[in-house]
Amino acid sequence: MKRTIIMTIAAFAMAAFSGNEMLAQKPKVLPDHRVEFTVRAPQANRVQIDLGKQYDLTKGENGVWTVTTEPQSEGFHYYFLIVDGVKTPDPSSDPFYGCSSMASGIEIPYPEGDNRFYQQDVARGTIAQKYYYSTTDKAWRRMFVYLPAEYFTNSTAKYPVLYLMHGGGEDETGWANQGRTDIILDNLIAQGKAKPMIIAMLDGNTRDFNAELFDNCIPFVEKNFRVKTDAANRGLAGLSMGGIQTLNAVVPRPEMFGYVGIFSSGWFAQAGPMGGGDNEKMYKMLEDRKDFYNKQFKEFFFTMGGESDIAYNNCKVMRARLDKIGIKYSYFETPGGHTWPVWRESIYQFAQKIFK
Amino acid sequence: MKRTIIMTIAAFAMAAFSGNEMLAQKPKVLPDHRVEFTVRAPQANRVQIDLGKQYDLTKGENGVWTVTTEPQSEGFHYYFLIVDGVKTPDPSSDPFYGCSSMASGIEIPYPEGDNRFYQQDVARGTIAQKYYYSTTDKAWRRMFVYLPAEYFTNSTAKYPVLYLMHGGGEDETGWANQGRTDIILDNLIAQGKAKPMIIAMLDGNTRDFNAELFDNCIPFVEKNFRVKTDAANRGLAGLSMGGIQTLNAVVPRPEMFGYVGIFSSGWFAQAGPMGGGDNEKMYKMLEDRKDFYNKQFKEFFFTMGGESDIAYNNCKVMRARLDKIGIKYSYFETPGGHTWPVWRESIYQFAQKIFK
Repeated sequence: MKRTIIMTIAAFAMAAFSGNEMLAQKPKVLPDHRVEFTVRAPQANRVQIDLGKQYDLTKGENGVWTVTTEPQSEGFHYYFLIVDGVKTPDPSSDPFYGCSSMASGIEIPYPEGDNRFYQQDVARGTIAQKYYYSTTDKAWRRMFVYLPAEYFTNSTAKYPVLYLMHGGGEDETGWANQGRTDIILDNLIAQGKAKPMIIAMLDGNTRDFNAELFDNCIPFVEKNFRVKTDAANRGLAGLSMGGIQTLNAVVPRPEMFGYVGIFSSGWFAQAGPMGGGDNEKMYKMLEDRKDFYNKQFKEFFFTMGGESDIAYNNCKVMRARLDKIGIKYSYFETPGGHTWPVWRESIYQFAQKIFK
Repeated sequence: MKRTIIMTIAAFAMAAFSGNEMLAQKPKVLPDHRVEFTVRAPQANRVQIDLGKQYDLTKGENGVWTVTTEPQSEGFHYYFLIVDGVKTPDPSSDPFYGCSSMASGIEIPYPEGDNRFYQQDVARGTIAQKYYYSTTDKAWRRMFVYLPAEYFTNSTAKYPVLYLMHGGGEDETGWANQGRTDIILDNLIAQGKAKPMIIAMLDGNTRDFNAELFDNCIPFVEKNFRVKTDAANRGLAGLSMGGIQTLNAVVPRPEMFGYVGIFSSGWFAQAGPMGGGDNEKMYKMLEDRKDFYNKQFKEFFFTMGGESDIAYNNCKVMRARLDKIGIKYSYFETPGGHTWPVWRESIYQFAQKIFK
C-alpha cells in the first residue's frame, strides 16, 4: 500500500515528462555472468550495446530488442547503449562518469564468499565532498575525501593520507563510485588488515598536476582534516593516466612521499609526446639518487591487469629499466585487463601495505 | 602541452571503447535563454529533445541534427535525448538522478548580479555521504549530510538539523546536485542571513517513511554528528512527494519539530489513493490540537511555483482547509512551475526563517 502511494505520487510529480518510454528493464546478469539486455525501441533500425565489445540486439515482438553477451569478469564494467548509431548511457542504470562522458555500469557478482567489495556489517566511513579554490586552474574544484569510520567519533586522532588518482576520461568520483574505495577500506580496517587512513580522491583533469597537488590539494587536506604530515604518512597512487601523473610527481619530489602506487600504468615505452625526453629525465633522476629512492619509498607498488591490459607493455618496459637501475618495487598482477575490477583489487592490495 | 598530454593519455585509456561517436557538443544556452542542441546521428530517422516539452531536431549536413528551443526559465532543468523513439540521457551533460532514471540537466544562467545560487568566494561546507543500516527497509541506505563550513574547524559546537526530502522519481542526491543546497547555505551563512545548520538530505524511497525517519534517520544523525536535539532545533521539509511525506510525519508527531517546509505540495484534493480518509484523519488532528500546532511550529512554510505548478490546486485546497481550522502558516509563491528553480528559491527562503 505504501509502495503504491509512493509510485502514485512519483507518477504525479513526473507528469511534466511524458511520451516515449524508457528502457523496459535493467540489464540482467545470468548465473554464468553473461548479461541479457532488453531495450524497447519499436522505431529503431539498429540497437547495440557497447560493453568494450559491441553487440547487436535482435528485434522481437512489440519492438523489444534483446541480446545476451558473452560471460563478463566479476566487478564493475562500463557500457553504453547505441540506437541507430547514437551512443548514450542507459537510463535504467546508475550513472557513472567515465570514458569522458556520462556512462552506464553493470556489476557482475563476485564469487560466493568473496565479500571484499561488498558492504558488510561494519562501521562505515564517510565520503566528504570538499570544494577548494585552485590557484593553478583559477577555479573551484572538488575532491572526494574518504574519512575512516572513527574520524567523527574520535575527535583528536590524526591520520595518514593517501592521495588517489583516477584514469583518463574519469574524475574524482571514479574511485568512490566505480572503485568502491570506501567499502574496501571499511572492510579492511574493520578486519585490522589496513590502518585507519584518509584517502583524498582528487580530480586529475588539471593543467598542471604537480602544481595542483603540491600547491593546492595537499595544503588544503592538511589544513582541513586531522592528518599526519610527514612523508611516512603520505602516499600517492593512481591508475592509468593517474599512474603516470603519480610517477611524474613522486620522482621529482620523493621527499614528500613514503608510499607510491602505480596501477595499470607506466611511462610510455614508445617515442612520441608521452615517451622520450621527459621520461629519460625521470630515469636519470632515479639513477642519480637510487639509494635515496629505495630508502624513501617504503612501498613502490605496481599492479597490472595481465597481458590484456593495454598498459602491460609500457609497464614491462619500465620495470626492466627500473631493474637495470636498481630501483626496488613490488609487482602484483591479476587478470582482467585495463578495467575497474583490476583497480579495485589494486587498492585492496595496496591499502594493506601502507602506513604500517 | 600539458593539456595535449592529458588528452593523449585519456585517449589511450579509452581505447577499449571504440566506434560510434558521442554527441558533438554540450547544449548551448543563448543570451535570450533559448537552448541550441546539436546531435550527431547520421543513421537516425528522428531525433528529439524532451525538455518538459518535446522538440524535433532538423537533420543537416553530415548527419548533424539541430534545434533551438524556446527561452527557458533560469536555473536547472531536466532534459532527455530521444533517438528514434528511445529516450536516454545526453552523454555530453552531467548526470542527475531524476524522473526515476538517469537524466540530463541544463543550467540557465541567473540574471547578472543574482549570485545566490552560484559558488562565491566564501567558506565552503561539506556534503558527507553517510551510509546507515535501515531496520525498516532491512538494507543499507544513504543520506547526504550538509555540514556548515565551521563544522570541521569548530570541533565542539552543536548545530540544529533540517531534514530535507526530494520529490518523486528523485533520491538523496537531488537537493545536493539539482538543488545546490550546499552552495545556497554557504552563501546565506557567510552573509549572516541563515544560521549555521546541518541539513540531512534523506532518501525518501522507502516502504514506511515515518518509521525510516523516526526510528532510523533522526537517531543516526543525532548519534553521528554534533547536533542539538530539541524540537526548536529540528526541522523537516520536502518538495512534491517529499512535501506529502513531511505533512504525514509532522502532523502525527508535532512535538518533534519546530520548523516545517512544504514546497510545491499539499495533500491530494481529489478522492483516490492519496485523497480522502487518511487526509481527513490528519485534518482532524490539526483541528483537535490547533493551538498546540500553532505554538509548536515556529514556521509552517508553504511555497508554490505559481499556477503552472501541478501541485497548485492541491495546495490551494489544503490552505483553505487550514484557514478554516485556524492553523497558521506562511505562503511564498514564485513563478516557474513544478521545477527545481522554484525549489532552490524555496530552500533559499526557508533557510532564512529557521533556527533563529
